[in-house]
Amino acid sequence: MVIGGDAAGMSAASQARRMKGPGELEIVAFERGHFTSYSACGIPYWVGGAVPDRDRLIARTPEEHRARDIGLRMRTEVTEIDLDRGRVRARDVDSGAESWTSYDHLVVATGARPVRPGIPGVDAPGVHGVQTLDDGQELLDTLARTRGRRAVVVGAGYIGVEMAEALIDRGYEVTVVDRAREPMSTLDPDMGRLVHEAMTGLGITMVGDAEVTGVRTGADGRVRAVATRDAEFPADVVVLGLGVRPETTLAEAAGLPLGAHGGLLTDRAMRVRGQENVWAGGDCVEVLDLVSGQERHIALGTHANKHGQVIGTNVGGGYATFPGVVGTAVSKVCDLEIARTGLREKDARRAGLRYVTATVESTSRAGYYPGASPMTVKMLAERRTGRLLGVQIVGREGAGKRVDVAAVALTAGMTVDAMTSLDLGYAPPFSPVWDPVLVAARKAAQEVRRAG
Amino acid sequence: MVIGGDAAGMSAASQARRMKGPGELEIVAFERGHFTSYSACGIPYWVGGAVPDRDRLIARTPEEHRARDIGLRMRTEVTEIDLDRGRVRARDVDSGAESWTSYDHLVVATGARPVRPGIPGVDAPGVHGVQTLDDGQELLDTLARTRGRRAVVVGAGYIGVEMAEALIDRGYEVTVVDRAREPMSTLDPDMGRLVHEAMTGLGITMVGDAEVTGVRTGADGRVRAVATRDAEFPADVVVLGLGVRPETTLAEAAGLPLGAHGGLLTDRAMRVRGQENVWAGGDCVEVLDLVSGQERHIALGTHANKHGQVIGTNVGGGYATFPGVVGTAVSKVCDLEIARTGLREKDARRAGLRYVTATVESTSRAGYYPGASPMTVKMLAERRTGRLLGVQIVGREGAGKRVDVAAVALTAGMTVDAMTSLDLGYAPPFSPVWDPVLVAARKAAQEVRRAG
Repeated sequence: MVIGGDAAGMSAASQARRMKGPGELEIVAFERGHFTSYSACGIPYWVGGAVPDRDRLIARTPEEHRARDIGLRMRTEVTEIDLDRGRVRARDVDSGAESWTSYDHLVVATGARPVRPGIPGVDAPGVHGVQTLDDGQELLDTLARTRGRRAVVVGAGYIGVEMAEALIDRGYEVTVVDRAREPMSTLDPDMGRLVHEAMTGLGITMVGDAEVTGVRTGADGRVRAVATRDAEFPADVVVLGLGVRPETTLAEAAGLPLGAHGGLLTDRAMRVRGQENVWAGGDCVEVLDLVSGQERHIALGTHANKHGQVIGTNVGGGYATFPGVVGTAVSKVCDLEIARTGLREKDARRAGLRYVTATVESTSRAGYYPGASPMTVKMLAERRTGRLLGVQIVGREGAGKRVDVAAVALTAGMTVDAMTSLDLGYAPPFSPVWDPVLVAARKAAQEVRRAG
Repeated sequence: MVIGGDAAGMSAASQARRMKGPGELEIVAFERGHFTSYSACGIPYWVGGAVPDRDRLIARTPEEHRARDIGLRMRTEVTEIDLDRGRVRARDVDSGAESWTSYDHLVVATGARPVRPGIPGVDAPGVHGVQTLDDGQELLDTLARTRGRRAVVVGAGYIGVEMAEALIDRGYEVTVVDRAREPMSTLDPDMGRLVHEAMTGLGITMVGDAEVTGVRTGADGRVRAVATRDAEFPADVVVLGLGVRPETTLAEAAGLPLGAHGGLLTDRAMRVRGQENVWAGGDCVEVLDLVSGQERHIALGTHANKHGQVIGTNVGGGYATFPGVVGTAVSKVCDLEIARTGLREKDARRAGLRYVTATVESTSRAGYYPGASPMTVKMLAERRTGRLLGVQIVGREGAGKRVDVAAVALTAGMTVDAMTSLDLGYAPPFSPVWDPVLVAARKAAQEVRRAG
C-alpha cells in the first residue's frame, strides 16, 4: 500500500510490480489529487511557456499505472495510519466516504508542502504557489487574466529564480525579494553575489535583506503590492517560492520517527526506523548527507525516484539501498547556470570541519573556441586531509553539469590533490585544456598545503 | 633543460620557474619549429573557420616565455642526448651550426609524429597532415587555391572526424575512408556504427573496410583521387588523419627505455625509468592505464599539460605525481558528440577481464524540455565485482561531457551498483530525472547480477 501518487510512491509501486506479478503482490496506491507521477520541477517551464502543455509533465497517468496492475485510488486522501492493526483510513475527497484498508507493507510517500509566510494578504487572489499542477494552472489562469505586467517573486531560492525566468519569458517585469542579502542561499554569499549581478544583467530586480511583511490588496481584493519592512513593490501577480517542508502530518500522528528537519527517518533500505513493514521516500523523508554525516531534508525529484526504486525493490523481495546524498543541485535563470554540491562554508563549520577555499575563473570551452563562456568555480577542501568538501559553480552554458564531477569525487571521498589528475574529457569545443574543476582543484590543493 | 617547446615542455618550464626564481634555477628550452605552447587540438577548428586565426591557438609566445626568464632557443633542433656527460647537442635549423649544452635536469618533451602511410603518391601536392600550425597553414593555403570541392579524409579517428567537420564547414563534399568497418575505433564497433549513421546524416560519406592503396595524381602532379583496394575516390584535397606515434628517435638513440607502443617509460613522478635527472612527458611517453593496469600511448594536450606541471614541480624542488589515465576522450563532428572512457570490449578481453555490457537510450534533458536530444550510453562492468570498466557515449548537445562522471567513477574504482545512487545534478533543462549515466549504471548492475 502506497500513500502518495507522485515520484517516490509510484516509482516504488512500479518497481515492486516489476519484481512481482499481480498473482504474487497486490498493490494499492492512494492519491488525493488529480494527477500521478508528474514533474513538479517542470512547472516553472510550463508556466514560462517552454513546455507547451501540462500533460507533457505527466510521466505516467493513472490509467497507465492501472494498466500495470497497480490499484490506484485517485482523489482519495489517507486520514490516518493505524500501525498496530496494519491499516489506513482513507476518505474519498469528493463523496467524503471513509473506509479502512489493510496492508502488509506500507509506503509513505506524502511529499512536501510549500512554506507559506504567515503574513496579511497572503491568501489574496493573485498570490500563487507553484507546488502542484493545479497551482501551475491557477497561476497561468491569473497571468492570462492580468493586464498589468509587474510580478514579484517572494524567495530567491531555486523555485524563486526559476519562476523569475518563467515570468520574464511571459513578458513581466520581475522583482525577486528575499530575506537574505544574496539570492540562492544554497550557495555561499560570495557566489550568491555573482548570481545577483547576473540576475540584474538579465533585467530582474533582485532585492535582498528584505523581509516581506505583508501583501497589499486593492479595492477589488486582488494583490496590489508586496510590502517589506522598508519598501513596497507594486505587483500584479505574486509567486511564492519559499521552499517546502516535509508533509509528515499523518506519519507524525501515527508516531513514526521524525528528524530535526521534520522529515521521516529511515534506514538505508528506506525502511522507517524502528518499523518492520513501513517504508518512506521522497520529499517527506530526511536523507543522510555523506559529507557532513548529518541528516538533511532535500526535496528533489531525482532523489524521490531513487527512493521509490529502492523501496520497490525491497518490498518486491530484492535488496537495494540508498546510501545518501552529497547535496547536488543545479538550476538556471535564463542563460545563467548555477550549481552546487557538498558543503557551503557554514555547513562545514556546523559539521565541525576546518577548511580552505579556492575560487577560480575559467571558461566552458577552450578560450579560442566560439561560445567559450566564463564561469566561476569555488571549492572547499578540508584542512590537513585535503578531502573535497564542496563545489559551487556560477556560469553560462556548459557550467552547471560540471558539478557532477565534484559530486562523484565527494562520494568517493577524494582529495583535491587527487582531483588535479582526474582524466576529464578534453577537446576545444568541450573544455579548456585544464577543465575548470581541475583548475579549482589545483588551487584548493595549494591552499591545503599552505594552511598546513 | 627542456627539449620541445609545446605543452609538456613549456608547462614544465613555466611550473619550474614558478617554483624557483631565475637566481635559483636556469631554464633553457629548445624548439625546432616556429611556435611554442600552441593547441594542436585546435587546428581543425582553425581550418574549419570557427577559430578565425592561427595566433588564437598560441597560448604563450616565445617572447612571453622569455619574459618569464625561460631561455628559449627557437628553430633549434636537438640532435643528440649524451646522458653520460649530461649534455645535448643542438643544431640551429637555419644556420646549421651545432653546439653542446650541459644540463643538470633534462626534460624530454619531443611530442609525437603523425603516421604517414607508405603508399604511392602520399607526398603529392594537395595531401596534408594536420599535426602542426605549419601543416594547418599549408592546408588552408591549398583550400584557398583549390577550385574543386571534393575532400577525402584518410582515417576516421578523432582527427579524421574533426577534419571532416572542418571541411564540411568550408563547403566541401567530404568522404572519410578507414580500414576499419566503423569510424572511431576508440569506440566499440556497435557504438562506432551510431557515429557512422550520424555522419551519413550530416552529409559525410563514410567508407569503412577500405584500405588505402595509393594517392592518384593528375597531369599537374597534384592529388586527383584516393585509391583503395576496391574503389577510387575523387579528391581535390586529401587530409591524413591516421593518428600519431611517440617521437622518441633521440631518446631511443640515447638508450632511454621505450615501451611496447614506442613511448618513453617513466615513473609516477614523470622521471624516465632508471634515470636520476631525466624527465619526460606529453605525447612522447606512455602512461599507465589505471583500469587495465597496462601502459598506453595517448597523445592529448590535457595529459601533456599535467605531465609538464608534475615535472616542473619536481624539478623545482616540490613533489607531484601523475598517477595515470582512464582513457577519457571527447570529440564532436558538427552537432554529434562522441565520448569514451575506460576499456572497450576488446581492451577488457586483452586485460583478461570478464565483463558485461549495457546499452541504453536516454536524453540530454527532461524529455519535455526544449532541446532534449537523444543519446546512447554503453557501459562495461566487470563480472562478479561489478566494477565499472568503461563508458561510451554518442549523442548530440550535452552528451559528450557526461563521460566525466564515468571517468571519476573509474578513477575511484566504483561499482556500477554504487553508481546508481550517485547524486548527480538534476533539473529539467540539464537532465532527465535519471541521468543517462545512471540509467546505464542501473542496467549494467542488473546485467552483473544476472551474469552472477
